[in-house]
Amino acid sequence: MTNRHDHRLIDGRAVQARILTELRAELERERAIRPVGRLLSVSIGPSPEIEVYVRNQARGAERVGLPFERQLWPADITQEECKRRIAALNDDAEVLGIILQRPVPAHIHVRSLQSAIHPLKDVEGMNPASIGNIVYNDVALAPCTAAAAVELVRETGLNLRGLEVVMIGHSEIVGKPAAFLLMAEGATFTVCHHMTRSVAMHSRRADVVVVAVGKPHLIGPDMIKPGAAVIDIGINQVSAPDGTLRILGDVDTDRVREVAGWITPVPGGVGPVTVAMLMRNALTAHKRQVASGWLPPATLRGP
Amino acid sequence: MTNRHDHRLIDGRAVQARILTELRAELERERAIRPVGRLLSVSIGPSPEIEVYVRNQARGAERVGLPFERQLWPADITQEECKRRIAALNDDAEVLGIILQRPVPAHIHVRSLQSAIHPLKDVEGMNPASIGNIVYNDVALAPCTAAAAVELVRETGLNLRGLEVVMIGHSEIVGKPAAFLLMAEGATFTVCHHMTRSVAMHSRRADVVVVAVGKPHLIGPDMIKPGAAVIDIGINQVSAPDGTLRILGDVDTDRVREVAGWITPVPGGVGPVTVAMLMRNALTAHKRQVASGWLPPATLRGP
Repeated sequence: MTNRHDHRLIDGRAVQARILTELRAELERERAIRPVGRLLSVSIGPSPEIEVYVRNQARGAERVGLPFERQLWPADITQEECKRRIAALNDDAEVLGIILQRPVPAHIHVRSLQSAIHPLKDVEGMNPASIGNIVYNDVALAPCTAAAAVELVRETGLNLRGLEVVMIGHSEIVGKPAAFLLMAEGATFTVCHHMTRSVAMHSRRADVVVVAVGKPHLIGPDMIKPGAAVIDIGINQVSAPDGTLRILGDVDTDRVREVAGWITPVPGGVGPVTVAMLMRNALTAHKRQVASGWLPPATLRGP
Repeated sequence: MTNRHDHRLIDGRAVQARILTELRAELERERAIRPVGRLLSVSIGPSPEIEVYVRNQARGAERVGLPFERQLWPADITQEECKRRIAALNDDAEVLGIILQRPVPAHIHVRSLQSAIHPLKDVEGMNPASIGNIVYNDVALAPCTAAAAVELVRETGLNLRGLEVVMIGHSEIVGKPAAFLLMAEGATFTVCHHMTRSVAMHSRRADVVVVAVGKPHLIGPDMIKPGAAVIDIGINQVSAPDGTLRILGDVDTDRVREVAGWITPVPGGVGPVTVAMLMRNALTAHKRQVASGWLPPATLRGP
């Protein structure tokens, strides 16, 4: 059983709390100067699986003091109407950032909608232009899960320069951007995926292993070098024989922590930090909107 | 001395000739349907080091039958005026694509100008949005040098799925996009750079080593696994004691080919194929402009 006092477990909720507290203070200072807009969450069609994510985002926003509006667009909305609405939200100075919840109905082309969100309002860091800026080491608005993985590597205190990092999984929104973010910090990285001949050959030589595959308990202790840091991005719903649902990561946490130097639990590891990264992106987006002249430099106030 | 008949040497000029011939035929078919615009090369301020590149591009364009216009903008032009001119070129239906030659004068912010080139006219694949699309596996307009490296790996006939590729050098326009392009084909890749603890540890286990560092003869035979493919992207001008200039790659070709299974010479390897990739991007850009309704679907002709 997972023992929360094990120093090898990195407590994502504690990391989240620290970051949200910092952001709250910074937002309060900012609000003394000029208005700060609201975060807008868009869900297309009802989708119960989204609910827990949206609720966590709303709670994170509340803790930093950002208004959070939830919009539910009809399941039969057209792609064109979605684009029209996003264009209007781009133009609305009171909307700080747009969160497009996934999944969306099959007839909606999600990437095209992500591209329609203006890069300065792309708080999830999902627009291809935002991703391209990461390649160019301009990491202002990074995809939140990838940024959370990097934040948790930092939490170990390991020096990232020259660190050997192996990513397992090469998704567009986690594996690839996380690789770039870590490379920007000086890590040497290898990206493994389902076509890799021997994942263990790579993972066993790594100082840090980041796993984002979506297969419960894929990574066992035989795949990890003693003392390595293991960042588990997987979130898998698994039903027990009695019908109850459990959330498991991609890493067999209880067994891997016998060899790992650091490990993130699931739940309570990457998830809460991802919400904190969304709020950090929101503050960054606000600053960039100010710097771009979208928002007033300062609201004049009496003495 | 390099022996051009060594089957281990991949002849970039022959690869270029084959691709340009294919593109020429395709462009002729296209021109029978609708007009095809011209390539526009922009140099800012006189720069002798650019000349050889521009000349090779112009020659490549001539061989596929594309008009190639060279513009030299004054060295003291402002950033704003550059942007204004690029916006006008974006709007000009007779301009198929824009090539922004580098280097530019110190007061010009080159990335900002690259971002100003419309993605559909970005034949060099340098706009951050184009790079971001590569991350999303939409590899239509890839940076030409990176695409050339991939083309040369294909030339070996090796199956890219599961291939272990090590990139040495992590530049934005070569190393990183090449890594993504190869990953999209199924390779497992590692990117090494100046902070990597042991480059040889990685390069010696690789099936394919791609080198883009800019240090003459950095890579010797001790760093390569017997039978591996070595793609050399380095182009270094080195002056001999008698004052003559030689072009050397990052790889000590004559010594490395004793162990390598395939190797690209410098000059005559990646360089000519890079020009071919620029022309392929030009044709792709043209097709995308048609698909986007920028150009007429067909010019009506009499029977």
